[in-house]
Amino acid sequence: MSALLNPARTVAELKELRALTGDENGAQRVAFTPMWVKTRHWLKSKLKEQPVETHVDAAGNLWSTLRGESENCLLIGGHMDSVPNGGWLDGCLNVMAGVEILRRINAQYNGKPPVTVRLVDWADEEGARFGKSLFGSSACSGNLDMNEARGLVDKQGIKLPDALKNVGIDFERVKDSGKELKNAAAYLELHIEQGPVLLDLDLPLGAVLGTFGVERHAITFHGQAAHSGSTPMKRRKDAFLAAAKMSSEIYKIAERSGNGVCTIGSCTTKPGIVTSVVEECRITLDQRHLDGPALAKMLQEAKAASEQFAKEGNVKVSWERIWQIDPRPFNDELIALCDESIRETCGQSHRLPSGPLHDAAEVARAGVPTVMMFVQSLHGISHNKIEDTKEEHLELCVTAFDKLAEKAMKFVAERS
Amino acid sequence: MSALLNPARTVAELKELRALTGDENGAQRVAFTPMWVKTRHWLKSKLKEQPVETHVDAAGNLWSTLRGESENCLLIGGHMDSVPNGGWLDGCLNVMAGVEILRRINAQYNGKPPVTVRLVDWADEEGARFGKSLFGSSACSGNLDMNEARGLVDKQGIKLPDALKNVGIDFERVKDSGKELKNAAAYLELHIEQGPVLLDLDLPLGAVLGTFGVERHAITFHGQAAHSGSTPMKRRKDAFLAAAKMSSEIYKIAERSGNGVCTIGSCTTKPGIVTSVVEECRITLDQRHLDGPALAKMLQEAKAASEQFAKEGNVKVSWERIWQIDPRPFNDELIALCDESIRETCGQSHRLPSGPLHDAAEVARAGVPTVMMFVQSLHGISHNKIEDTKEEHLELCVTAFDKLAEKAMKFVAERS
Repeated sequence: MSALLNPARTVAELKELRALTGDENGAQRVAFTPMWVKTRHWLKSKLKEQPVETHVDAAGNLWSTLRGESENCLLIGGHMDSVPNGGWLDGCLNVMAGVEILRRINAQYNGKPPVTVRLVDWADEEGARFGKSLFGSSACSGNLDMNEARGLVDKQGIKLPDALKNVGIDFERVKDSGKELKNAAAYLELHIEQGPVLLDLDLPLGAVLGTFGVERHAITFHGQAAHSGSTPMKRRKDAFLAAAKMSSEIYKIAERSGNGVCTIGSCTTKPGIVTSVVEECRITLDQRHLDGPALAKMLQEAKAASEQFAKEGNVKVSWERIWQIDPRPFNDELIALCDESIRETCGQSHRLPSGPLHDAAEVARAGVPTVMMFVQSLHGISHNKIEDTKEEHLELCVTAFDKLAEKAMKFVAERS
Repeated sequence: MSALLNPARTVAELKELRALTGDENGAQRVAFTPMWVKTRHWLKSKLKEQPVETHVDAAGNLWSTLRGESENCLLIGGHMDSVPNGGWLDGCLNVMAGVEILRRINAQYNGKPPVTVRLVDWADEEGARFGKSLFGSSACSGNLDMNEARGLVDKQGIKLPDALKNVGIDFERVKDSGKELKNAAAYLELHIEQGPVLLDLDLPLGAVLGTFGVERHAITFHGQAAHSGSTPMKRRKDAFLAAAKMSSEIYKIAERSGNGVCTIGSCTTKPGIVTSVVEECRITLDQRHLDGPALAKMLQEAKAASEQFAKEGNVKVSWERIWQIDPRPFNDELIALCDESIRETCGQSHRLPSGPLHDAAEVARAGVPTVMMFVQSLHGISHNKIEDTKEEHLELCVTAFDKLAEKAMKFVAERS
């Protein structure tokens, strides 16, 4: 098999793409822009060399199909769009590894593999322009909130439906994309980790257990403004004091939860002047866990802590939910196959959850057995031009992901 | 003496003033406005009944002089100006009590007291319009920063020098006001407490030990932005975590200091989004103490704590001084006389520092022996239309302040 796969070609193609669609500030492949259209043309030119049927679905996702003995499909996915000033790997690594794997399968099975293999380039995974990620995959999974999406506008005041019209997509029909999942029996996605876990473990690759569930809330403590000079410490109703206590507490809550994470991302104070005790302090709390009950427990513990701190400080507290999503655990059997492929490639694997969301979460939500593979990120950073991964790790991930594709074809065939 | 003093008249005059210069939102006697000019006319009409010489000095302060046997002067001060939507007592109680005391002294000594007694209505104590308090008294003490004051503008873009010109004051000559302090041997000021200490102790009056020194700083913690989903808790450089630890710490620092106070009045976070660990967190810290070395110690302890928290959280910290003023302890002998006057009037006194600044701090800074008397504030609130003090306490404070004036005349005479 390895003689037919050329991981170095994937790295070369990624560099070619970087030169074509990036500038000194990073990748500029924002969805539905001319640069994104140009990117798609380039991708199609790469696919043209293979005997694959290619079409764009109702939501703007690009599907390339290599028909096999069975109609049952193995799906491989990624996204060519980037954030503005993005990294050179986020999303397109997945697609270009898929292109290389299609080449290998085509060559190995003389154009007719045992099951149908399809590569999908999801439209607007990043949501950079309209502030709503996973557009194409959530339209396909049927979970896109049409009323919300209809009202989305970019910074220039252009509505999402109008931007879609410009690239030939009819907004009101985007959920017709769902029919693409007919016969889908497995979905695979490769991605850079975008975090430091594999780097810290000095491991190139990991098998992803699923995407975190998220509870996102604003917490407001209500105290009383009072003169900073004339108000004795014991008389104060200091909203900042109560809110600040949450900061250390969420680290304890996360630790008790096992592998959950909690983040206070912002803090605002009113009146917010140097000469007054803080009357109102609003913080945002983002909690994530792979396990639903564990996530619920983290939230409950944060609420209890906030009430305790409010009571201690003689202030009041109120909560407001900003956003919530359930955990999306991946398929156990595919996780095991992913682990196996990694071990066969580089000796050692590691299982880890995904903090960020990915299109894979939407596909899993639609009921398709799903798994992701992560490759180590340098600096633990993405959405930035300094995002990077060692070239030897890029080649390793193409190899391991290809092994996973082969195992997943058998997984699909057994279900036919 | 008491037969000649009519504290009820002071309360009646304060109500008259409220009706004349307030509206449904509170007092509207902002310095250098037409309402303030109207207030001054009203005040002069009250003074005209007495054999006092009245003039406005180079800084706009209004001086009324009852010449005595000695040129050495007892000064009594206050301010008729208010913040917009202010309370009915802040500043004008001081002046109107002084008017009543002038009446009593004039009557008792047949127009020729043993020492000269002068009442001063300071110009723009509040600094409500130009954001700089103690204008008239700091010009008189010689401590007004001319370069800073020259550039001050109000919300309409009018410069302070131009606003002063409109009321007949030549900005470049305001420090000529300093000659008014020639022969000044004692300065007395009555004020509402603007805090809850006397209310909590259920005492009507207190002797003020001095005005707090203030150290005011911005503290910025510098961490690293990181994805809230993909960054393990142990890897974070969380600027908010380090800053938040300061919140509880300043309560400990204030407690250790004896009677100091510390306030974190504002907190801002960058990037300040729900999905990122806080990269930069800026808080403001206001520390106040009556004792210089104790204030310096509080500052040093806060700095040490910030460095410890920065180290613990693997972030950096930087400090920036916003403002600083030394403590202004009042005159020991006058404090004792103030205490004595209060005990003679209502049985029990209490010594307390002043958190807010007052014109008295500037007079003390100019080397004039100074003391203030506080009367209880209801709600512990000022700079608001709900600011209030019981009428029986207002009458008590006029009586006690008059006793203090009599004792202070002897204090001045002994120094002649």
